[in-house]
Amino acid sequence: MNSVSVKLGPRSYDILIGPDLLEQFGKFLNRYKLGKRVFLISNQHVFSLYGNTVQESLVSEGAHVTEILIPDGESFKNLETVEKIYTCLMAQRADRNSTIIALGGGVTGDIAGFAAATFLRGISYVQVPTTLLSQVDSSVGGKTGVNHQKGKNLIGAFYQPKLVLADTDTLSTLSNREFRSGIYEIVKYGLIYDETFFEFLESNFENLLIRDFQTLEKIVARCCQIKSAVISQDEHESDLRRILNFGHTFGHALEAIMGYSGITHGEAIGWGMLIATEISLQKKFLDAASARRVVALISRLGALPKVDWVEFDDLLELLEHDKKRQDSQLHFVLLNEIGKTLIRTDVPPALLREAWQSVTSSRVPLPHG
Amino acid sequence: MNSVSVKLGPRSYDILIGPDLLEQFGKFLNRYKLGKRVFLISNQHVFSLYGNTVQESLVSEGAHVTEILIPDGESFKNLETVEKIYTCLMAQRADRNSTIIALGGGVTGDIAGFAAATFLRGISYVQVPTTLLSQVDSSVGGKTGVNHQKGKNLIGAFYQPKLVLADTDTLSTLSNREFRSGIYEIVKYGLIYDETFFEFLESNFENLLIRDFQTLEKIVARCCQIKSAVISQDEHESDLRRILNFGHTFGHALEAIMGYSGITHGEAIGWGMLIATEISLQKKFLDAASARRVVALISRLGALPKVDWVEFDDLLELLEHDKKRQDSQLHFVLLNEIGKTLIRTDVPPALLREAWQSVTSSRVPLPHG
Repeated sequence: MNSVSVKLGPRSYDILIGPDLLEQFGKFLNRYKLGKRVFLISNQHVFSLYGNTVQESLVSEGAHVTEILIPDGESFKNLETVEKIYTCLMAQRADRNSTIIALGGGVTGDIAGFAAATFLRGISYVQVPTTLLSQVDSSVGGKTGVNHQKGKNLIGAFYQPKLVLADTDTLSTLSNREFRSGIYEIVKYGLIYDETFFEFLESNFENLLIRDFQTLEKIVARCCQIKSAVISQDEHESDLRRILNFGHTFGHALEAIMGYSGITHGEAIGWGMLIATEISLQKKFLDAASARRVVALISRLGALPKVDWVEFDDLLELLEHDKKRQDSQLHFVLLNEIGKTLIRTDVPPALLREAWQSVTSSRVPLPHG
Repeated sequence: MNSVSVKLGPRSYDILIGPDLLEQFGKFLNRYKLGKRVFLISNQHVFSLYGNTVQESLVSEGAHVTEILIPDGESFKNLETVEKIYTCLMAQRADRNSTIIALGGGVTGDIAGFAAATFLRGISYVQVPTTLLSQVDSSVGGKTGVNHQKGKNLIGAFYQPKLVLADTDTLSTLSNREFRSGIYEIVKYGLIYDETFFEFLESNFENLLIRDFQTLEKIVARCCQIKSAVISQDEHESDLRRILNFGHTFGHALEAIMGYSGITHGEAIGWGMLIATEISLQKKFLDAASARRVVALISRLGALPKVDWVEFDDLLELLEHDKKRQDSQLHFVLLNEIGKTLIRTDVPPALLREAWQSVTSSRVPLPHG
């Protein structure tokens, strides 16, 4: 088992990464002095896979567990679902010492985390991410929230969990597409922070794709270390934390345009990273050899969903709404080299359009090999 | 002008107390480096009194101000109103550098603060309390939130403002009842923390009642100092902060039973303090002479609304739901002497009933003088 500490003063917590963690959950509940009145928030699918294991482990250590099942999917990530959770918590007399457990992917974690952040002005919660994407990204850092009809994650709070349990065994049940979607975010960590890790990915990509459990544990742990290092220095995304948004400005807009269907979050970030890389190349921040390495690694994940039918002007309009605007300027995270970013506001629409057209109309991503 | 610092590390802020502060708002906006894109949240009544003054002052210093008027009253303090605020903020393209100003009483402050806490995972806000109750209590400390159909303030967050502007001139337009309601919370500060302040209130009560502006500024500042001292040591109400709930356990239950009508929050706290004092006397924590002083001072505010028709058993059931339960035990804040509290869980229902009956059926509060 790997353990990564997120250092945030009184809000510090550990991320435990490894196999068989769900079976040991009850033990961790005691070790981390979490309340024994537990509300397990999950969706039907994930609960059917892991609910019993978690419940048995918790109950065997004296916890009283109530499950709250919520509908799956981004379209249910809204205040209505959060309200249903409040109602359940109240009906079951949850109090300030109760603990919420978020068992599932990013959507479950975001919703359950926001419910924890806002019930009785904040109760404890544990993230138990069961997808690759949530293990390396959304479960760490305390971003919680739901969507508003006008946009994604517009309602939310920074609220740190007390513990993150990333059981790598849960990755074996993911579909191929869901698993690969998580890899885009993994590639991101190498690009924004750590060339050595990027090289490790280049050398061990096949082991990652076949879900070799040792490779997985190592990679998930490294991603959590990087994310932890970034957010420990910048909890509330004022500056440094923005680098985590590499590929996300375009990615988010693309997801929104496509109505959050036909493309996964990871795939949208894949496109976003290719576009950010192209802009970095055009602006001469990044050299051509490095850009080729980026494209090559991303291409090993196979073809991304086609997006060349999307109107660039629609995208641009959406970007204007992007919540990452600061003083009405769009901030783009670009690459200086592999492992080093820079943040620029001087990316004119014409260059955006050029990069978009060049990337989406080319044969990128390249065929395997 | 008085200035009180709330010391909470990176979340520290100032409370400015005095006359003519609304006219100088624009100046403070600059001095405290707040964003110039301002959303002024208020209700129609308060906005008609002070909206122009605030807007002119802000605009003269280069701010762009959009007002968002919300309905007045506890019954609108719910997620629906918060959703309407989100929609306005989105429509007007509020971003992370935007600032919310909460202009009004406690309800406005709670709602606007919660919107600020949860929009884009938190944007800056300024509390501008215009009632006595909100100046001495709810605007300070970062408690934000709304009601759930199952109970008051069940949805919320701890989220500190960047600044509190308590313009004592605004107290002149309050109705007599609203003004006196705030005084119950003022008496509370003397009781829980500061016998000298309690004595000051005993000696200067008439000046307070006639709203002498110097007396008011002094009293509001002392209350803010006490609240600030308490929350600086305990931001999230784990222990010490609980003393601020003196009189609130019963008070909240009483308000709920009465459907938040026919009694103000302050008046409910008035009853709650009398009952807590009676319990303190019965348990022999407090001597009879001190208890008489408490009753005498509270009585100088005039008769409280009659509540002897409320069924004690209904109250008791509601107390069970009270969010201040910790491990399913009710914590009562009691008095050891004037200015010193103790927190006990060993208050049996029989004693509660006795105190309730004794206090509500007696001729308390005494007639004036």
